[in-house]
Order: sequence, then structure tokens, then C-alpha cells
Amino acid sequence: MATLTMHEAREWVEAVLQRAGAGEEMARSTAHALVLAEAQGLGSHGLSRVPQYATHLRNGRVAGGALPRIARSKGAALLVDAQEGLAFPACELAVREATQRAAELGVAFAGVTNSHHCGVLVNHLLPAAGAGMVGLAFANSPAAMPMAGGRHPIFGTNPVAAIFPRRGGEPLMIDLSLSEVARGKLMVAAKEGRSIPEGWALDAQGQPTTDPRAGLEGSMLPIGAASSAKGAMLALMVELLVTALIGAQFGFEASSFFVDEGNRPRIGQAFIVVDPGALAGSDVFAERIETLVAEMQRDEGVRLPGARREERRRRAQVQGLPVPDALLAQWPARG
Amino acid sequence: MATLTMHEAREWVEAVLQRAGAGEEMARSTAHALVLAEAQGLGSHGLSRVPQYATHLRNGRVAGGALPRIARSKGAALLVDAQEGLAFPACELAVREATQRAAELGVAFAGVTNSHHCGVLVNHLLPAAGAGMVGLAFANSPAAMPMAGGRHPIFGTNPVAAIFPRRGGEPLMIDLSLSEVARGKLMVAAKEGRSIPEGWALDAQGQPTTDPRAGLEGSMLPIGAASSAKGAMLALMVELLVTALIGAQFGFEASSFFVDEGNRPRIGQAFIVVDPGALAGSDVFAERIETLVAEMQRDEGVRLPGARREERRRRAQVQGLPVPDALLAQWPARG
Repeated sequence: MATLTMHEAREWVEAVLQRAGAGEEMARSTAHALVLAEAQGLGSHGLSRVPQYATHLRNGRVAGGALPRIARSKGAALLVDAQEGLAFPACELAVREATQRAAELGVAFAGVTNSHHCGVLVNHLLPAAGAGMVGLAFANSPAAMPMAGGRHPIFGTNPVAAIFPRRGGEPLMIDLSLSEVARGKLMVAAKEGRSIPEGWALDAQGQPTTDPRAGLEGSMLPIGAASSAKGAMLALMVELLVTALIGAQFGFEASSFFVDEGNRPRIGQAFIVVDPGALAGSDVFAERIETLVAEMQRDEGVRLPGARREERRRRAQVQGLPVPDALLAQWPARG
Repeated sequence: MATLTMHEAREWVEAVLQRAGAGEEMARSTAHALVLAEAQGLGSHGLSRVPQYATHLRNGRVAGGALPRIARSKGAALLVDAQEGLAFPACELAVREATQRAAELGVAFAGVTNSHHCGVLVNHLLPAAGAGMVGLAFANSPAAMPMAGGRHPIFGTNPVAAIFPRRGGEPLMIDLSLSEVARGKLMVAAKEGRSIPEGWALDAQGQPTTDPRAGLEGSMLPIGAASSAKGAMLALMVELLVTALIGAQFGFEASSFFVDEGNRPRIGQAFIVVDPGALAGSDVFAERIETLVAEMQRDEGVRLPGARREERRRRAQVQGLPVPDALLAQWPARG
């Protein structure tokens, strides 16, 4: 295991992505995001994605030369076309524009179309929080979950994220996908030979299963599926927000991120930025946040969302990031 | 059981609310909403609320003379003050204004503060869908669910709603509260002497319980709580959206709707309206919706969200609404 500073890690990712065909800005933006996720302890959206993104660039599943552009714009709404490149520079542009427009008009909506995997969704909202704004974010992903009452995967696990800035503190950061559990939990159960509760997965025939191996060949279930259709309704809402409004592809139209070959996913992301100053005002906003934080902390054991990943990030800034030697050897910066 | 036409039912509700102190517009708007909910088959948000609202008016938990007004306005964002009246005229004003501003600026955000129970959340978005707009809605409610890792109720069941208009068809209507199940399911289990699964409720000491009676004295759990903190994070997101941005009260600051005495809840609602015409365009929007509808319907047994309540509403328009004689006798229109 090598230990890289965050700066060195970014340089390595940039170099690998550029060698695989990414333009300078795409490589910079993506490296920033992957290294931040790794530092936050979110390894599945961190450096482990370098081989995937580089392979997609090489295989033409991502257009390395793409430059995101504002394709439509009206007042407080805009549509960014990622041009089938990696998602990060397009999301950066979308949030930057939305933050400016929200400062002017109180709220803004920015959609990103023709996009790819967007990593840790809530991190895209950090610049909005830095400007004192509330942010919401939605994204779809290749199909993994059925509609309520359905049998075949149709929605992605479709994350929802929100950020709420605090005065003199790190923002509250909410970020969750809409599956009851992550596929990783099925993999662990399969390895340990344990069964899984009903409500986690369907088998390949679309039947409920408690066998994790059958679930891995089938589809994941939306949050709360053992009791209701609520999670599927949330997944449908996100799917439509980031496709119908934006002109992007559905999860069932996109090839998996976890295969080397396949189509350009052309999925969507959506960001909504709201200025508290245009509504209750920033003093009321700050008071309300702190009042709720205090109420939540009356119960021992309650952790503020985002706190743990922020601690990890600070630690990584001092101690650096451990990176497997094999990863560095297989994806050298030069050669 | 009496059978009233929808028109007669509205007249009755209006008269009862006005006798209890509601102004003309408040009574009209509320009667429209309660009768619509009843016709849609959503009885818990329909005529059964008439005694509750009338009692709150009489006991001063609702200000009958309140007139909603736009308290703040900036570009595409506005804040409506319900002035501690019933929620319906304030929500009507908020969605009407937001729809106009979204038509001009692509997106709009309208918050409602100093509000009360808002009934069927998604129904407030019908005028937005009628204008071809996508709508999102959020609301909080008196505390019923703990934070993740917490023991005492802090969030409401905090509904989320969305509406997506279709060409030549009824809009897709999504509307769900964020508890794993409704309290009604615990009441049924208690009556039948059955236990409930873990993940539905905590007892009064904040411990997980499978005893429905203990759960009824404790708190409901957020969606997916058996597996993760995801539902609590969604509830936190909604709670902050409709209070911190808007200056409204938290669920834990509001007295239950189901008691006669108590404070003016002063909770919040938020509406976001987006114009597809400002983004992907209305043709692309319509194509995307119909493509997803067709894909969902490939699985037998999938029902489109909102379809069943629309069928029921049509039937009620023809057949009228059954109303218990006791309800009419106890809450006469005149006397």
C-alpha cells in the first residue's frame, strides 16, 4: 500500500484519465471529485472508479474530448449538456450557474443531460452551500430496481441529496440511494452463507428471495418495499425529474457502469438551489437549523449527517491516502 | 348513510367551517380539498377531518379570519404567510404564484409558513400540472418519528409529493409520507392481536418493539429503518426544507392535529414548480413520460400512480359521496 497526499492522488488520477483520452478540464474535475470521495471514506465512489472511468474513456463509452455547454437557458432554469463526457465538469458548471441564478432570483434549477456516473451526489452541492445556499440533487443510474408490483429492473438506485449550510460549522449533508440496501450487503451475505430478509431483492424471475446469490442475479428492491410502494414511488419521481425534464436516458436504457463495453449511458442529474435570504432570511434560517440540531442531539448516539465524512477528510489531508500498489502499477501516470 | 353530490358535500363543509369561524375563502378552499380527497377514496384526509378543523377553529388553534398573503418575494421565490389559518387557501395561493413564475422564469419555489394540516399534498399541485408544469411538494407535521439513532419523536411523517402531467391522460401523481407504515397498520395489528415486524415502531422508551400497542404509545419509524438511516435522512431533509427556508415551526414544536386543545401548529409547506418548456422542451418531456409508462406497463400488475384515485373521483362525480348520518347530525350546516 502506497500513501499519497491528496495533491499527489489528484495528479495521479488526472494523468491516468488524460492518458485514457480525457481533456484537461474533465480530468481535473474528475480527479478532484474522486480524491475527495476517497478522503471522505467513500471508497466505492473514490479511487476504485479510476479503472472504470479510464476504461470507459478508452472504449468510447465516454467522449474524452467533450466540453459541457449550456444547451438551454431561461430565467432561473438551465440545461447543461455533458456531451457524453464524464459527469463532473458538467455538474460543476450546472451548480455554479444555479448558485448564481439563485442568488439573483431566489431559486434555480439546473439539469445535466447526456451524462455519466456522477460519484458522490451531495459533493456537487458543496459550492452552493459555500455561498450560503440550500441545495437539492437527484440522479438516475443504470436500471437496478423494479417498479412497485413489477418484476424487471427499470429504475436506477437513483440517489437523492441535500445540503444545508450552517453558520460556523460544516453543512449538514444528506445523500442516499433509494434501494433498501446496497448490493454490497448481498455480496457479504452470500460470502458468509447467510440469508437476507424479504424486501431486499428479487430473483432473476422477479420473485421475492431471501437467497443473496439469487438476489445478485435479480434486482434490488426500493426502500421500504417489504411494507409499501413508497420507495418505488420515490425512485419513479427521481427518474422522471432527471430524464423527462432534461431529455436524458432512463436507467433501463443505459448499460451498467460495471461493464467495460456498452453504450454511452447519457443519464441525467438535476440540481435545485434555493437562497434562504430570499425567503425566511439568513438569520431565521440559521436559528432554525441550530434549533433542530440541538433537538436531534438530545438523544445520545445521534450523528449529524456528513460529520463523519468531514472528519475523515480532515484526517486524510494530514495523513494522506492509502492507495493499493497494484492499482498504481496497473494504471501508471506515465509509461 | 346519506349520499351527497360532491357539490352538496362542499356546501355542507363550507357551512360547518364558516359556523366554526372560518372566513368565506378559507371555507371554500378547504371544502374543495376535503371533498376531492373523499371522492378520491382518501377518507383519512377527507370528510373525517371536518370535525377536527371545526374544533380547531372554535378552540383558537386556527385563526378563522386569516387571509394568506405574500410575505416575501424575490424573482422566482416567494413566501406565503398562512397567518395561522387553515392551510388550503395559502397553499392555493403559493402554487398559483409559483406556476406563474415558473412559466416566466422556468422554475419557482413557494413556501408556506404559519400553516396547518394541508390534507392530500399532491392535490395542491393539480393546477401546476394543468398548466403543463412538473410540481414537487413537501410538508412537515407534528412529531411522530425519531432521528436515526434517536429515541424521541422529532420529525413529522413529512410527506413528499410530485406531479408529472401527461398529454391526453391524467397526470402521474406521487404522494407518500416517510414512515415505514401508517399508524393505521399498528391499530389493525393491535385489534387482531398480531405482532408487527421490527422496523415499524419504537416503544415509549425509544426501544424497538414488535408489539403494536407499545408502538402506538411510542413513535413510528421512518421508511427503511430496519436496514438503514435513509428514511430518517429524507425526513430530516423535508423538515429543514419546510421550516429553515420558510421560518415555520418544526414537527416537535407543533401540537398533534388529533387533540382538540394545543398550540397553533405553524408548520410549513414547500412547492417547487418546473416548466419542461424551459428545459428539454414539452415534446421531449411528453415522449420521455410515455416511454417510461410503456416500460413500467410491460410488467403485469403495475398500476400508474394516481390512476386509482382518479377512477374513484370520476365514480363519485356520478354516484355521489356516502356520508355517515351521525357526522351530518353532529355537525349540521345550520342550527
